[in-house]
Order: sequence, then structure tokens, then C-alpha cells
Amino acid sequence: MVNFTVGPVQSSEGVLAIGAEQVPYFRTSEFSELMLDNERLVKKFAHATEDSRVVFLTCSGSGGMEAAIMNTLTKDDKALVINGGSFGERFVELLTLHEIPFSEIKLEYGKALKQEHLAPFEGKGYTTFVYQKHETSTGVHFNAKLISEFCKRNDCFMIVDTISTFLADPFDMTDLDAGVMITGSQKALACPPGIAVMILAPSALERIEKAKCCCQYLDLKLALRNQDRGQTPWTPAVGVLRQINMRLKEIDAAGGDAAEIARTAHLAEYFRDKLKEYNLPFEIISESLSNAVTPLHPTTQSAHQLFLKIKDEYGMWICPNGGDMKDTVFRVGHIGYLQENDYDKLIDAFLDLRDKKFI
Amino acid sequence: MVNFTVGPVQSSEGVLAIGAEQVPYFRTSEFSELMLDNERLVKKFAHATEDSRVVFLTCSGSGGMEAAIMNTLTKDDKALVINGGSFGERFVELLTLHEIPFSEIKLEYGKALKQEHLAPFEGKGYTTFVYQKHETSTGVHFNAKLISEFCKRNDCFMIVDTISTFLADPFDMTDLDAGVMITGSQKALACPPGIAVMILAPSALERIEKAKCCCQYLDLKLALRNQDRGQTPWTPAVGVLRQINMRLKEIDAAGGDAAEIARTAHLAEYFRDKLKEYNLPFEIISESLSNAVTPLHPTTQSAHQLFLKIKDEYGMWICPNGGDMKDTVFRVGHIGYLQENDYDKLIDAFLDLRDKKFI
Repeated sequence: MVNFTVGPVQSSEGVLAIGAEQVPYFRTSEFSELMLDNERLVKKFAHATEDSRVVFLTCSGSGGMEAAIMNTLTKDDKALVINGGSFGERFVELLTLHEIPFSEIKLEYGKALKQEHLAPFEGKGYTTFVYQKHETSTGVHFNAKLISEFCKRNDCFMIVDTISTFLADPFDMTDLDAGVMITGSQKALACPPGIAVMILAPSALERIEKAKCCCQYLDLKLALRNQDRGQTPWTPAVGVLRQINMRLKEIDAAGGDAAEIARTAHLAEYFRDKLKEYNLPFEIISESLSNAVTPLHPTTQSAHQLFLKIKDEYGMWICPNGGDMKDTVFRVGHIGYLQENDYDKLIDAFLDLRDKKFI
Repeated sequence: MVNFTVGPVQSSEGVLAIGAEQVPYFRTSEFSELMLDNERLVKKFAHATEDSRVVFLTCSGSGGMEAAIMNTLTKDDKALVINGGSFGERFVELLTLHEIPFSEIKLEYGKALKQEHLAPFEGKGYTTFVYQKHETSTGVHFNAKLISEFCKRNDCFMIVDTISTFLADPFDMTDLDAGVMITGSQKALACPPGIAVMILAPSALERIEKAKCCCQYLDLKLALRNQDRGQTPWTPAVGVLRQINMRLKEIDAAGGDAAEIARTAHLAEYFRDKLKEYNLPFEIISESLSNAVTPLHPTTQSAHQLFLKIKDEYGMWICPNGGDMKDTVFRVGHIGYLQENDYDKLIDAFLDLRDKKFI
């Protein structure tokens, strides 16, 4: 099976080789060193400040999103959140559950964020901005620079979910002055799922110190205190953390985040060019694309039927959408261990399906 | 390295082979079937009632412990908790954090639970009993039958942490009339860490339906609704769940839970007999042993120094203790993919260290 979804994605040979090994005992100096090395490399690739910290939680990216809300916001905050798809909707749910006052910028699916969306909220006392840099469900890459400028003007603390964009699109945490960034092991980090990674700038560390977290398991104070010595409060997904280490070192050796982003951008461009070249019956639904994924509306067939057909008859996974978009949208990912010839196979399958009048 | 810790433990060849594979996309009927198969086999091996349910959370066992407290107890409960080591202490912390009224049965480390410990709490309106069937930190296997009888007499809902005892010691959820049982992927399930498994009896399902969980990520209502169709609300540790499936099928083929428990009991006995045979300077500190682990007090050397020595010079991990017990206790595990000759190697190392007057 070739995997074009946006997670779990395909891993390198080096990462898979670690998956085949016994998982070592972890309350050791050897594992601590690996964890501190992971912290160093994640900060390097995110261009975080030296005094930022990284924690690795054993949970999905959604667990990381909730940890950010629970540990850095209080009822005294006033948050602004972008809701442009199912992950924006999740932030709305989390702010509601944790009783953080907020306003929502509701964007039509596929639409980019513009200055005009932010204008009504200028100077209105917002303390926090919460958003996806890349709304994975619709493939819309929001303009983080625009948001950063809003935050700087309005003195807003920034929580940015970069789950599917970190290492796929440029990200400079220092330049954006983000307080919290969140990513997951199974996106462009291209490891098995199980670990959420969070970078915490000093502004976040200060908030965490003051907040009372309502969940011990996701308490970042405990995570930070343990990460001081390269450890975790609870038994972590040790295997995935070792795979992350291998992957970070592979990226470092290949030229760092810039090289990895360029590689991904090239694959995205290669695929998008082919779509045009063969005039396939798919419309790109996003006004602002990430390198991570191409979101497509098939004009002649149900997206879900196409997903099943490609899976069952061609041995490939394209990425289905859920909910309202189940029949109208599918996505083709460009993260993970993919090559040009994988896209050639996918394009051949689409062409075959067009010949057979399925699309 | 040979791994005698109590988690992560060694995995079978079949489980490791899956670790070497690409992690598949999971929003598919194929993955749903695997998850429902996991549910069926876990229930079978725990002797749960047909109308019990199983959820698989991507977190450590501690996350499962907290999910149990958050989703099935409220401020109207009155809980009784056994605190006989660091995991009992964790339940105390969780009950405190979540403001569940409770009383604590504090047992000296290593001591068994007796009827006299329960007597003062009879007929005092306790609604819930929370405990470790096996307190992993001290290797004390509590008498679950005694607790079950107390619960039946006092109409108590039972939350039992079987994290390190499930598949190592006999466990019959129906017979005990437990409401919630919790285990983890990295104990006797012998898979990499990352998944907490919970079995929920109808009494628990009823409580979950009524409770308001303060954490979306650990909300069992959401987990149950998704597990109805073999799915999870968030991207789970798909790789580990596939390994769990392999392992459950291996156990089933080898004779089920009874055969696996007998295999573990045999290894424990083999090791304990050798300790006696060679009169090694270690005292067993538990009054009531589990098959999962042998907890030892070395009488002639610091336990932590012994852990480091065995790791660095003999290529084996024994299991260190933390906190107060760091220098006084170490443990030798019997769960995971271990054989008699692994114990021969460990005994040889101990004998060598005695010859060298290290112990």
C-alpha cells in the first residue's frame, strides 16, 4: 500500500528499523540524553529561542491541543480562535469545555484568512490567539504573519497548532513570537503516531507556572519538571521517541528544516503540475495551499467512493474527509517518505479510472 | 540487552515484525475490524461479561487511571483507596485533584492487605473501591477476592488497576464484579508502550453516561462512541494497536490467558528457586507475590548501584526503584518475552558480582 494520507504517513528505512528493535528500558541516562537531543533538534528546526522548552506527551495531537488550552489559559483570558474546519472546530470545543471566554472567526471552508477578518477584533482586549497554521481538514494554510502582527499590536499570547505543517512549510517560532506550538509524531515528522510535541516559549512557561491544570496526565508543569532531566512523569511511547530521534537526525544530516520543506514543496508541485497536465476532474478547494497536502473536490464522483476504489483496487490510500465533506472532498498528502514515482502511480490510477468512466 | 524490568518489556518476534512495517491508514473498515477483534480478545482473557466494553486510549497506564477517576466518579462518591506504594499514592493524588471524597488504607510497603485493614470501613457508606490489584512498585499482589467481598457487602463500585498483573496472575472480572479494569500495552501484553486498555462493565458504562468529564482527550463517552465502530476520536497509536492484535492472537493460539499466566508463574518460580539455591544476598520484600515481578532488597549493596552495574557491565536491565526505595529495592520482572536461560544469565551475573565482592 502506498500512503498519501496526512497521517500516519510513511517512515524512512531508518525509522522502521528502530520499530523492529526491542523497546529499551527508559529510566536511564542513555534515554535522557536522547530526549534532550530531541528537544534540541525540535527547537532548532522550529527556530525557537534558546530559552524555549520542549515537552513530549504520549497522546495524539489533539491531546497536545488540549494540554495547551488547559495549561496556559484561564477564565481571565479572552481568546480569539480561527474556525475554518474540523480542527478549528476542535479548538472551539476545547475553549468551551474549559470555560475560556472566546470569540470565533468562522471562515468558510477553503477560504484564506484576510486582514478584513481580523479588523473587527483590533483593540478589543483579546489576550490570546488560538489557531491552526494549517487547517488540515481543508488544506488551508493560514497567513501566520498576519496573525503574528495582530498579536504584536494587541499584546496577544499565541497558541499555534502546526501539527500538519511543521517541517512541511516554513515556520519561525521566534519571528512569529508564538507562545506555544504543537505538532505530532505522525505528520511531517514521519514517525508512528503516539507522541505530541509542544514547544513552549518563556511566555508560555510563565503562564504554565501560574495555571492550575485540571488533568494530571496532561499537566505541563509535571512534564517540564521531568524533561529537565530528559524524562517524563509517566511511561512514554519510548519506541516512537527513539524513532523521532532517528528522524530528526536524518533531517539534520540532509540539511535541516529548510531542505525538508523544499523536498516536500517539490513533491506538492510535482503532483499539482500533473493534475493540470492531465486535466483531471478535480478542483483544488483551498485558496491558500500548504506543501503538506492538496485538498481536492472530485467533480464527477463521490470522494468517499474514490477513496474506497483507490484503496481496494489500486493498493493506495488517498486521504478521505469526514462529516459534511465526506462525498465532496479528498486529500492527497505530500508529507512522509514519498517519492515522485509514487505520484506517477497515483496519477496512473486516476487516468485509468477516467478511462473506465469511474471519474 | 536483556530486559528484566516491568515495562517496557521484551516483545515476541511477531510483534517486532509489525514494528518494522509502515503504519497503515486507520479510518478504514480493516482497522475497525482489528480494533473490534482486540476488544473481543481482551474481554475473553479478562473474563469480562458479554455486555462489558473495551476502550483503547493513546496514553500511559497512568492516563487510564485518571480516565477511570474522571469518568466514573463524582463529588457524590465516597471512595476507599489502598495506598501501598507509588501507584496507590498516584490514585490518592488523582482523587484529591478531582475532588472525590475518599479515605485511604495506608499499608506499609511490602505488606499484604488483610481483613483487619478493611474492617473499620464496613457499613460506613463507601460507594467506590479504588486499588491496584498488584502494586508494581513494591511487588505486592493484593487479595482481590477480599476486596470484592467487601465491595459486594457494601455495594461499592470497583475500579481495579491491573496494569502489571493482567495476563501474569489470574483475573476474573465477572467473578470480582469489577466496574473498571485498567492495563497498559507495555506490561504482560508485551507490546511497546503507548496504549492504555480499559474494560468497562455495565455499572461503569452507566456512570460514564451520567458523568461530565473535564478532559476531552480522556473522555470515555467519546472513546466508547467511536469504539462502537472500532474507531477512536483522535489518531491513536495505530502501530501499537496492531502489535496488540498480534500479541492477543499469539496468546489465544497458545492456550489463552491461563497458559500465559502459567508460563509467567513458571519463570517467576524458576528465578526464585535459583535465588534460594545460590543463597544470594537479596531479601524478597513482598508478603504477597505476583507472578509479574520479584521485588528484592539487596543486603550488601545499594540497589541503584547494582542496577547500574548490571546495565553497564553485564548488558541487562533489572528494574530500579525510585524515591525512598532507590537504594534499598530493585525488582526482577517475569513478564514479556523471557526464557529460563535469560534468568541463568542474570543469576550468573549476580554470582560473578558476589565473587568480586560487589554484593
